[in-house]
Amino acid sequence: MPEFIGRGPTLFTIPEGDTLARKVCPDCGFIAYENPKIIVGAVCRWEERILLCRRAIEPRTGYWTLPAGYLELNEATPAGAAREAWEEARARIEIEGLLAVYDIPRLSQVQLIYRALLVTPEIAAGPESLEVRLFAWDEIPWNDLAFPSVKWALDQYHEGLASGDRVTRRNPA
Amino acid sequence: MPEFIGRGPTLFTIPEGDTLARKVCPDCGFIAYENPKIIVGAVCRWEERILLCRRAIEPRTGYWTLPAGYLELNEATPAGAAREAWEEARARIEIEGLLAVYDIPRLSQVQLIYRALLVTPEIAAGPESLEVRLFAWDEIPWNDLAFPSVKWALDQYHEGLASGDRVTRRNPA
Repeated sequence: MPEFIGRGPTLFTIPEGDTLARKVCPDCGFIAYENPKIIVGAVCRWEERILLCRRAIEPRTGYWTLPAGYLELNEATPAGAAREAWEEARARIEIEGLLAVYDIPRLSQVQLIYRALLVTPEIAAGPESLEVRLFAWDEIPWNDLAFPSVKWALDQYHEGLASGDRVTRRNPA
Repeated sequence: MPEFIGRGPTLFTIPEGDTLARKVCPDCGFIAYENPKIIVGAVCRWEERILLCRRAIEPRTGYWTLPAGYLELNEATPAGAAREAWEEARARIEIEGLLAVYDIPRLSQVQLIYRALLVTPEIAAGPESLEVRLFAWDEIPWNDLAFPSVKWALDQYHEGLASGDRVTRRNPA
């Protein structure tokens, strides 16, 4: 680690030639440009059951979620969704298509949620999960879901299965 | 501006507790996490003509593009696409739906391109455009488009108009 630890980008100011205030480090002058982040995830199905993960990490520890996380640099979004399914649930998946794009401007997030099939039903909790499980539709723990967008994705996945359409969904009204 | 200018995040190393190398400032210890960026844009139509902008900035100065740019913090993607249409072409638009999601992992970009209608045909070059123009389909300057994804979006927009479908497109094969 470096010997001199500065204050980091703690100064909120408009850099010369810019139009918006950015975080600037008063010690080193570094400008920390911040951009919205991309979350990739998937609704993963084995026969009639859907994969959920019980979170081992904050926020919402102990609540159920889809395998999902931040897209990495130089990663395509379907590859990122498959990586997250492996990391969080040791699940091998085959991506079918783009289920939904959710705007979460409050958190500066855009979520891309895929429809996917499990290649095998063998799953296991990764380091960020307390447990992982395949749920039939009427077993889904609706009251213990981690985030509103998990419910949106499950509901919209179910609608798409019922109607057979392949429309990419958006935030519900 | 700060008095002491450090070297910035020039050290590429794996921070303690992390799994990937990140850029770290050797003077202040700041970790510059980098994430893929979201580009938002729109294919904007007035009657049978489509809005293109000739770029005043690098890269690809002088070539034609769709109004598009980086999503800002706390901005929803349709709002970002409308903001870019205003900034680059002084165009007021009404978003119809999500035309396409393109993965550009080489550039760590995800592009969300909307279908939109111009509310009025009055347009003008913003500071990042040399000129702006409404093109009939057979007038589009195919050999002078700025980026491959501009051609993808125009072609896929045209397909969708012809078929009347509202499927969200992906990178062409």
